[in-house]
Amino acid sequence: MSKPTAMNEKHENLSWRARWYEVIFEADTPAGKLFDVLLLIAILLSVLVVMCESVEAIRKAYPKLLVGAEWFFTLLFTLEYGVRIICARRPKRYIFSFYGIVDLLAILPTYVIALPIFEGGPSAQRLAVIRAIRLLRVFRIFKLAHMLSEASALRQAIWAARAKIAVFLSFVLIAVVIVGSAMHLIEGGRVDSDGQQIVTGFDSIPESMYWAIVTMTTVGYGDVSPTTGLGKALAACMMILGYCMIIVPTGIVSAELAHAGGKSQTTQVCPECMGEGHAADAVHCKYCGAKL
Amino acid sequence: MSKPTAMNEKHENLSWRARWYEVIFEADTPAGKLFDVLLLIAILLSVLVVMCESVEAIRKAYPKLLVGAEWFFTLLFTLEYGVRIICARRPKRYIFSFYGIVDLLAILPTYVIALPIFEGGPSAQRLAVIRAIRLLRVFRIFKLAHMLSEASALRQAIWAARAKIAVFLSFVLIAVVIVGSAMHLIEGGRVDSDGQQIVTGFDSIPESMYWAIVTMTTVGYGDVSPTTGLGKALAACMMILGYCMIIVPTGIVSAELAHAGGKSQTTQVCPECMGEGHAADAVHCKYCGAKL
Amino acid sequence: MSKPTAMNEKHENLSWRARWYEVIFEADTPAGKLFDVLLLIAILLSVLVVMCESVEAIRKAYPKLLVGAEWFFTLLFTLEYGVRIICARRPKRYIFSFYGIVDLLAILPTYVIALPIFEGGPSAQRLAVIRAIRLLRVFRIFKLAHMLSEASALRQAIWAARAKIAVFLSFVLIAVVIVGSAMHLIEGGRVDSDGQQIVTGFDSIPESMYWAIVTMTTVGYGDVSPTTGLGKALAACMMILGYCMIIVPTGIVSAELAHAGGKSQTTQVCPECMGEGHAADAVHCKYCGAKL
Amino acid sequence: MSKPTAMNEKHENLSWRARWYEVIFEADTPAGKLFDVLLLIAILLSVLVVMCESVEAIRKAYPKLLVGAEWFFTLLFTLEYGVRIICARRPKRYIFSFYGIVDLLAILPTYVIALPIFEGGPSAQRLAVIRAIRLLRVFRIFKLAHMLSEASALRQAIWAARAKIAVFLSFVLIAVVIVGSAMHLIEGGRVDSDGQQIVTGFDSIPESMYWAIVTMTTVGYGDVSPTTGLGKALAACMMILGYCMIIVPTGIVSAELAHAGGKSQTTQVCPECMGEGHAADAVHCKYCGAKL
Repeated sequence: MSKPTAMNEKHENLSWRARWYEVIFEADTPAGKLFDVLLLIAILLSVLVVMCESVEAIRKAYPKLLVGAEWFFTLLFTLEYGVRIICARRPKRYIFSFYGIVDLLAILPTYVIALPIFEGGPSAQRLAVIRAIRLLRVFRIFKLAHMLSEASALRQAIWAARAKIAVFLSFVLIAVVIVGSAMHLIEGGRVDSDGQQIVTGFDSIPESMYWAIVTMTTVGYGDVSPTTGLGKALAACMMILGYCMIIVPTGIVSAELAHAGGKSQTTQVCPECMGEGHAADAVHCKYCGAKL
Repeated sequence: MSKPTAMNEKHENLSWRARWYEVIFEADTPAGKLFDVLLLIAILLSVLVVMCESVEAIRKAYPKLLVGAEWFFTLLFTLEYGVRIICARRPKRYIFSFYGIVDLLAILPTYVIALPIFEGGPSAQRLAVIRAIRLLRVFRIFKLAHMLSEASALRQAIWAARAKIAVFLSFVLIAVVIVGSAMHLIEGGRVDSDGQQIVTGFDSIPESMYWAIVTMTTVGYGDVSPTTGLGKALAACMMILGYCMIIVPTGIVSAELAHAGGKSQTTQVCPECMGEGHAADAVHCKYCGAKL
Repeated sequence: MSKPTAMNEKHENLSWRARWYEVIFEADTPAGKLFDVLLLIAILLSVLVVMCESVEAIRKAYPKLLVGAEWFFTLLFTLEYGVRIICARRPKRYIFSFYGIVDLLAILPTYVIALPIFEGGPSAQRLAVIRAIRLLRVFRIFKLAHMLSEASALRQAIWAARAKIAVFLSFVLIAVVIVGSAMHLIEGGRVDSDGQQIVTGFDSIPESMYWAIVTMTTVGYGDVSPTTGLGKALAACMMILGYCMIIVPTGIVSAELAHAGGKSQTTQVCPECMGEGHAADAVHCKYCGAKL
Repeated sequence: MSKPTAMNEKHENLSWRARWYEVIFEADTPAGKLFDVLLLIAILLSVLVVMCESVEAIRKAYPKLLVGAEWFFTLLFTLEYGVRIICARRPKRYIFSFYGIVDLLAILPTYVIALPIFEGGPSAQRLAVIRAIRLLRVFRIFKLAHMLSEASALRQAIWAARAKIAVFLSFVLIAVVIVGSAMHLIEGGRVDSDGQQIVTGFDSIPESMYWAIVTMTTVGYGDVSPTTGLGKALAACMMILGYCMIIVPTGIVSAELAHAGGKSQTTQVCPECMGEGHAADAVHCKYCGAKL
């Protein structure tokens, strides 16, 4: 009689895991939604703690509060990570999935910094490493990706338009390389009356390309800007090109999406009149009235 | 015989209120339109007065004119507020509605500043409060919202696209947090030869995030800009990302609206099953097959 | 026998005017197209002359050439203006039309400056007036409007979307007024340790509104930018608002145009099956095959 | 018996050339794709070499490596150019085609600089020429155009919208000329107390137009910005105009593309009249009424 008990136990165990699975991994049930909202708040608060820590005034004013909050969130996310591994149907698959790695990276930095290696006198080298590791914690923001179920439509749209976006980006980059080189030729390499080279921000092609990107994307910091007449004319042409260029790809993506989105028609064919183009909710053929 | 008289009186009273109601709250009748236009001009002029007051040269040149105009508009809006309360079918509902609160806030500041508390020797503290209250009057501009009946289409479009806009904004903010942190790591925390920290504008994550927002939205003030090669490369990537990102959501909103607006459905109702939403070229009801 | 001659003469005269009318006012015939292209070149060259004149180095190098070119184009446009008046079917209507006034304004400045009033010793006052009048000549560029026949589609689209553009602009301006006032409160009116007011570029509401427009349209000069933490946070919110705001109206205009443009269907109804939605080039009903 | 041999030889020769032709000029076969990918990598690497050479620090650190890489890529592209000429069906047509000229220009600069003329003492004049020629090599990036087969859709879209883009650009340029001239009048030509002219960046119409383009395209460097109240007001109007202007053409292009792409026409050809372009739901040919 031990077998059924074991089975029951296993069943109960399974159902216990299944129930937790639904709460943690899915967002259909009220409990699952509540868990998601609480986790969202915890992620945002923990990112806020990292941000506050980077501001010197706050770090010096509340050192204990920040360390306490840090450990609170680390333990919370460690608990979450553990429960996710226990509940997951295929733990290994979860661990090596994108979200599994993000969840692990969200807790590791705090533990790593607590290691004895990082104790003792703070040499500059060691401090820089600690600083980098501490900042890694901000990548917890990626945990939000769990919740972006709505993003799938966006992802599909980007995926569908990937060829066009690639062409668009290639075109932008080719323009950036050519205009950057031309501006390097026009604005760079000038010397003053003493034969000293003047620093213009166009002194190498990569620097000119940085300027070209800043200009073409209409950001326009103004830390580097052309000073010669020819350079200004070329810059003006590039701005108008960049301004026009945003119009055409926007139109293409819109048209593609409008076309794709308008296809809510089934591929059903009327058995009587072979009419096509029926709406997804059609029961009868709209041309001859026959049942579909 | 007093009853009918009372009724008549009440009826006349009602119709008097009803007539005013139409003039003040609606814009269908010529009188209602005229009232709206006059109110629009009064709002714009009163906002202009607040603006002029904030310019020191004008404030000193025409002090009496500005105070007079201020009281004129305050009394005008007080009168309007009173009539609205009297005419409104449910006065309480109006008072606590968005527009009721805006209308009240449009007149309060002038009265509050005239209170005896604010008289006497002008201490700096008291002056700052007065200044803040005076500026509150500029929120009269919200009274314009009464007139934006056309905005409902925009509001619906934004409401329909709210999920997509939220995803878009989440994506922007995640990118801002990550790039901001990375730039803080790359550009911030540098020391000069004396061991003094150099102020770069990337000295904390919030400051870096401010830079990231300025860059990603293509505003690009240039008050903070990267100076290291790695920082410039990351900034260039972010600009191109921000440039591409405006394309996809625009396309999605366009497609959604085109789909919604372009359904070109007739308002025909099936005589049999009362089904709606038939395509313009439908001959038979797509639900029951009856001839339309 | 004088009557027929007079008629013939009048007829010939008419046909001579009619022929010139076609060449000058229309662009269907080869001669009309050639005239338009030559006029286009003349306009662009004359604008180029005005531009060159404003550059001091060029003005001093070729003073006679510029004056000569100036008089050449003025006489050319005077000739054109005269012929247009002679050929026009209703000369008065042409003279007081938009293009008539533009054509007149294109030639007046040169004659006005040649008047004896402007001769003699060049007082500063007189020079400023001359300078303003000379620059007026650049408005010759409006003569190009004659040729923008393609612009009618754009004009119609803007006209159709005028209500939405007005709502959009109202919303932008309300946001500019409110954010400008808030920034004036946050960033303006600060005093240094000596009690002297610090000039921040947010010293009055109009100045703050200028900043708000520069920011919201993503221009971002950087001549004025927030320096306090709260001001930067508000600026960041405004930038994201401005970035999102460009998406929704673009989508609305696209959808409206897509809807309008997609209606290349005739309103023709099949006389047999009453089918609608036929393409403009359809000869037979696409449902039953009957002749339309 | 020599004839058939010759024919065979010619045939084999032809097939050898045909096989190479497919690999080099087309991208349908696996070998063709591999060739394209390898060429892509070579182009990007060779452009990278040119870029590195323009950075002084890298040029001084690895002079031999860069020269070696330069000659390696030049010989590689020379080989490619030679094989392309041999394999091309009409060598002359290839040589004088856009791609043929680009391929030639990609290899020429290295050979030209190796000529004895450029040897000997480096005079400044000679160095500038060498520098310009060296930079020409960056135009190798145009060789990428071979691979942008996806770009044809974009090119078609731009071609279809050329009239509208031309109108849009004309409108932008007219606005730039007029606002530039007005700003030159308002901001330029001011003198300080000593009668000296102040340099404002609006000292000539071309300079003002440069500012107008920087502003209208929302780049906004901030190297030139208005300082007077009137100038700021005009600049604000121009920014809002530029902000609105990007909406309408985007909508027009989107609508045009949506219309073109959404025609959902079948590729069906009428069996009677050979008419094409039938709607997906057509039963009868819309031209002759024959059943499809």
